[in-house]
Amino acid sequence: MAHIKLENKMPGIVGLMHYRPETAKPLNELAETLLRGPSTLSMAEREMIASYVSYQNECHFCHSAHGAAAAHHLDGDLNLLDDIKAGFKKTDISDKLRTLLNIAKKVQVLGNKVEQDDIEAAKKEGATDLEIHDTVLISAAFCMFNRYVDGLGTWAPEDAKAYNETGKMLAHEGYLNSIKGE
Amino acid sequence: MAHIKLENKMPGIVGLMHYRPETAKPLNELAETLLRGPSTLSMAEREMIASYVSYQNECHFCHSAHGAAAAHHLDGDLNLLDDIKAGFKKTDISDKLRTLLNIAKKVQVLGNKVEQDDIEAAKKEGATDLEIHDTVLISAAFCMFNRYVDGLGTWAPEDAKAYNETGKMLAHEGYLNSIKGE
Repeated sequence: MAHIKLENKMPGIVGLMHYRPETAKPLNELAETLLRGPSTLSMAEREMIASYVSYQNECHFCHSAHGAAAAHHLDGDLNLLDDIKAGFKKTDISDKLRTLLNIAKKVQVLGNKVEQDDIEAAKKEGATDLEIHDTVLISAAFCMFNRYVDGLGTWAPEDAKAYNETGKMLAHEGYLNSIKGE
Repeated sequence: MAHIKLENKMPGIVGLMHYRPETAKPLNELAETLLRGPSTLSMAEREMIASYVSYQNECHFCHSAHGAAAAHHLDGDLNLLDDIKAGFKKTDISDKLRTLLNIAKKVQVLGNKVEQDDIEAAKKEGATDLEIHDTVLISAAFCMFNRYVDGLGTWAPEDAKAYNETGKMLAHEGYLNSIKGE
């Protein structure tokens, strides 16, 4: 049960967004722009960064929902969630994405942990300034979303399969309509 | 010098927002709603929470800018910044705000650090569910802003006095116009 009375039974951030639509609006716009807006990073890559950071922050709901979204941008196999936890041992990701995940992980610890060497390594693999910018902001944004979801004690389904429909919806319909019409 | 080429010389998050206006828009709307929108918490109280969390995250720019904004909502004395660092030893704040600052500090560490006892303590001092919600989201949001600012290695003026004009502008004009017209 959440720490406050939400007057709805929806899980994770969904229940919070229905409780406070004034803040849900910019939060969803930020997610839509970062994860699905025009970018040279694929939507799958951006959702993988989001899910990876959420796992570091111990946020089961966000790790699962965004991992499932990444899976639906690829082949739909939810085993991806376990591989994200393991640090991408099986998934075929580019060397560039590995350097961006390294930056995301530093940002997750604290902004000032990112060093010039981390940036240079990403640039060496072809990352652009904008890709580095967006990686830092995706990681930072999930340090917010994760704390919002867990700081208010929301509930989350345990099993990965329970996130299949959410992942499909996030991958194909996105974030802007996520609190409308329910 | 920032880790990426911003094509401007503005400090902290201001330079980043000019670099990427697409993400600046929802970020500023979130800050405006949380820190200046309708609330039973005063704007000074909300800016103090923001500055306090930013100090825990070692983000000099955000701690100084939002501490200066809080000061301008009060009597304008920038010594408030040092007292925020010290954990509010001199500033006359309510017992309710102290319990909310305790929640904000737990959220800063990680969402799942907030315990039912922390929530009960705030409720006992009269905090409403919405005040607790907004405190958690303010803390979470600054865990994002702080990482964004420092993760990209932006520069920030050292001296508290350098934030006087910024604090005055944030307190009196707010966040929505912060990247227009420059």
